[in-house]
Amino acid sequence: MKSVFKSPLSLTVLASCLLSVGAIAAPANDPATLAQIRDSAMKSDWAYERLADLTDLVGPRLSGSAGAAAAVEQVAAAMRKLGAKVTLQPVKVPHWVRGAETAELVDYNGRPAGITQKIVLTALGGSGATPAAGLTAPVLVVRSLDELKAKAAQVKGSIVLVDVPFDQELADRGHAGAAYGPGAGFRYVGPKMAAELGAAAALVRSVGGANFRIPHTGVTGLVDGARIPAAAITTEDVLLLDRLLARGPVKMHLTLTPQNLPDADSFNVIADWPGSDKADEVVIVSGHLDSWDLGTGAHDDGTGVAGAMGVIETLKKLNLHPRRTIRVIAWMNEENGTRGGKAYFDANKDKLDKHFAAIESDSGGGRPFGFIGSVTPPMVKYFAPLKDALAPIGAGQFERHDIAGAADTSPMERAGVPVFEPMVDSSAYFNYHHTPADTLDKVSPLELKRHVAVMTSLSWFLANMEQPIGRTAHQDSED
Amino acid sequence: MKSVFKSPLSLTVLASCLLSVGAIAAPANDPATLAQIRDSAMKSDWAYERLADLTDLVGPRLSGSAGAAAAVEQVAAAMRKLGAKVTLQPVKVPHWVRGAETAELVDYNGRPAGITQKIVLTALGGSGATPAAGLTAPVLVVRSLDELKAKAAQVKGSIVLVDVPFDQELADRGHAGAAYGPGAGFRYVGPKMAAELGAAAALVRSVGGANFRIPHTGVTGLVDGARIPAAAITTEDVLLLDRLLARGPVKMHLTLTPQNLPDADSFNVIADWPGSDKADEVVIVSGHLDSWDLGTGAHDDGTGVAGAMGVIETLKKLNLHPRRTIRVIAWMNEENGTRGGKAYFDANKDKLDKHFAAIESDSGGGRPFGFIGSVTPPMVKYFAPLKDALAPIGAGQFERHDIAGAADTSPMERAGVPVFEPMVDSSAYFNYHHTPADTLDKVSPLELKRHVAVMTSLSWFLANMEQPIGRTAHQDSED
Repeated sequence: MKSVFKSPLSLTVLASCLLSVGAIAAPANDPATLAQIRDSAMKSDWAYERLADLTDLVGPRLSGSAGAAAAVEQVAAAMRKLGAKVTLQPVKVPHWVRGAETAELVDYNGRPAGITQKIVLTALGGSGATPAAGLTAPVLVVRSLDELKAKAAQVKGSIVLVDVPFDQELADRGHAGAAYGPGAGFRYVGPKMAAELGAAAALVRSVGGANFRIPHTGVTGLVDGARIPAAAITTEDVLLLDRLLARGPVKMHLTLTPQNLPDADSFNVIADWPGSDKADEVVIVSGHLDSWDLGTGAHDDGTGVAGAMGVIETLKKLNLHPRRTIRVIAWMNEENGTRGGKAYFDANKDKLDKHFAAIESDSGGGRPFGFIGSVTPPMVKYFAPLKDALAPIGAGQFERHDIAGAADTSPMERAGVPVFEPMVDSSAYFNYHHTPADTLDKVSPLELKRHVAVMTSLSWFLANMEQPIGRTAHQDSED
Repeated sequence: MKSVFKSPLSLTVLASCLLSVGAIAAPANDPATLAQIRDSAMKSDWAYERLADLTDLVGPRLSGSAGAAAAVEQVAAAMRKLGAKVTLQPVKVPHWVRGAETAELVDYNGRPAGITQKIVLTALGGSGATPAAGLTAPVLVVRSLDELKAKAAQVKGSIVLVDVPFDQELADRGHAGAAYGPGAGFRYVGPKMAAELGAAAALVRSVGGANFRIPHTGVTGLVDGARIPAAAITTEDVLLLDRLLARGPVKMHLTLTPQNLPDADSFNVIADWPGSDKADEVVIVSGHLDSWDLGTGAHDDGTGVAGAMGVIETLKKLNLHPRRTIRVIAWMNEENGTRGGKAYFDANKDKLDKHFAAIESDSGGGRPFGFIGSVTPPMVKYFAPLKDALAPIGAGQFERHDIAGAADTSPMERAGVPVFEPMVDSSAYFNYHHTPADTLDKVSPLELKRHVAVMTSLSWFLANMEQPIGRTAHQDSED
């Protein structure tokens, strides 16, 4: 032994051999390996650099745009550079392009001659267009879909505002998703219902916190044949409308000229880090690559994509190879169609039994506290080593949900594949989400390191689990 | 006595007589009257209703605009309705009109083919125009005027960004003015100096807190003959430029099409609440009526105007008539020329000895803590009764400054007239100031009541002071 330690070179060689041997021979989910993964992720800037490439060099990445195409190339190239096996899975995506968007109140009680009041808004995904010169109609505010239906006679020919406030207080208490849900639901359904009732246009209150007169975009359920102009207006402008409507009728002039173009060709980026003895089984770790066009999609969902990419970078650096294949996916079209998730599901319908689990991160890059997963209750106890490994960075919580619920993985989840997500602080996420302010400076490099630590540890743990994880509790309970 | 109290009607009559007599006969600054003023203001919604009229019905009020003209009429009408003696003082104002404003980064290292990055900006007051199709030039960032001068050779033909960050931490510690000063100074001087050095255009970092990718406008010192396009870009976009410039040279395509039109006719609105035995002496209480065009000027300076208007409403309701005349002024053109303040000064140069004091509120509608004033140190003690009267609403502080410094009253102040301002919490003021988000919902109705209580108590106190207040400490020390 003594002679071996004489030379620093020999020492390095030995250590390197031990590491390689250790990676293959040690129990896959031993505490030392999990600690090594966590600590390596906490020291790496690589994922943040990829996030900067994505947001600074490419920027917005709405499905069908040049940005989305450039993002596909950029992520695929970075994954190939790490040595991952990259596949581009073709996906036909909706191709909606924003146009002019202006609005002003042209008549209201007490309006001085020559005055109009500007309304700040942004078109919603799938919005139809007004004539190029705009349209003018009375504004009708409703606060529920029931009220919308009950006022059908007034809806016809009106600009209907569906006013459902975002509950920031609920978000602050840790229930950001619950705060977002009602408004997002109305945003999807409200314009469609207003269109069916003959509205001239539909507006929704921006679904998000932080009132700095920025509109939050999002997708609608509008379809050809009943496609009316639809936009999100800022909270401030909703309040202005409420006050002016208390003085009497209000008329708005609205101009929205987006285009709904034929479906475009795009791709899911799939990068495999091959497994060893169970290489035919797959653990997906993913985020969505497309983003809304107003900001640069840093939190939504640049952090998810960069976090998933960071999994392979971490494992490669540590020369770690899992038993099951770890499959990084950068999904296309989560925002306005979920076509990427559907295309993957359709192509893998017959191989779902080989999908051990799927992770998707799409709640922003806030501080991670742990992870959630839609496993059956008896499975929870097997995650103790993973919780222990993540506890030192404050990310050791595991919440079991019946449905984890990220959009792209949900078809698999409904078919029984257990789905996981990092559990993060999303209390400020909806301040930026779907707005021009979703930019790189909002993402903490430190939290992104924690994010990669959680994503990599969880992927590794699942890919090496001895215990068969089984299917989700709610399998077959839905379509 | 007994018979008098038999009927409720008689009681009312008696109380009313006593009140009238009291208002005239009691010592003008007795604690009871000051308490009555304070308590009445704290119960009145009148000023908030006027602020709502101004912001909701008129909206933006940039000098020379239809909004500014409508605001003059609206405020004059409200003051006449109270029985004040209203004069419209003609003021010739700059007439600058915002046009198109877009920018994108069209070349940078690492740019994928077909990609440009959008920059969010807004033209600054006095900005010149680019060609209608825009101009393209390299971006040069400088962080001081010295650096701007030192890089004169590079400045020529460039789009120069003067990057001076707003110090929110300083604002949070109660020094919002000091946080705002450096950036605002560079905003005024930087574009002018860049123009003289041959820059293609000038950009400044938005001067304000809260990063939600909203640009903060403001005035420049640009003049005819060297008028280049000038805009404020958001903090997020400054950071993006910094990161891209670290990768290599950056080119921007910039389109700004504002117009600098001939000076327009406008007015200061002057509303006198006449004094009694010293009616020829004047105490001014004021705010500025013009506002930037992006928001509705609720904090800047709707609260100042509504607060000043509330002085007369409060005194009228209490049937209080001061010894000196209280003169409410809604100044025109504080934002981009201060022509209203100058016009008043020029017209009153010979009567400054009859200007006992001048109050201007222009730091937003945040919580008032008291008031500041540019009196000489020996005068401070005489304000004790006023401090005592305002202490119960948390507004009993008096800070003596050598220069109080609101813009419209500063010519008078430099000539020796003591100037006062409410002392308010401005820590959040610069989050909204000069942005689209300066809207009514940001103003607390309760704080506006406190504001009126301070403005009215201070006006009344000054208008009835026995002690000659004298001139400011720094009289004649400046031009």
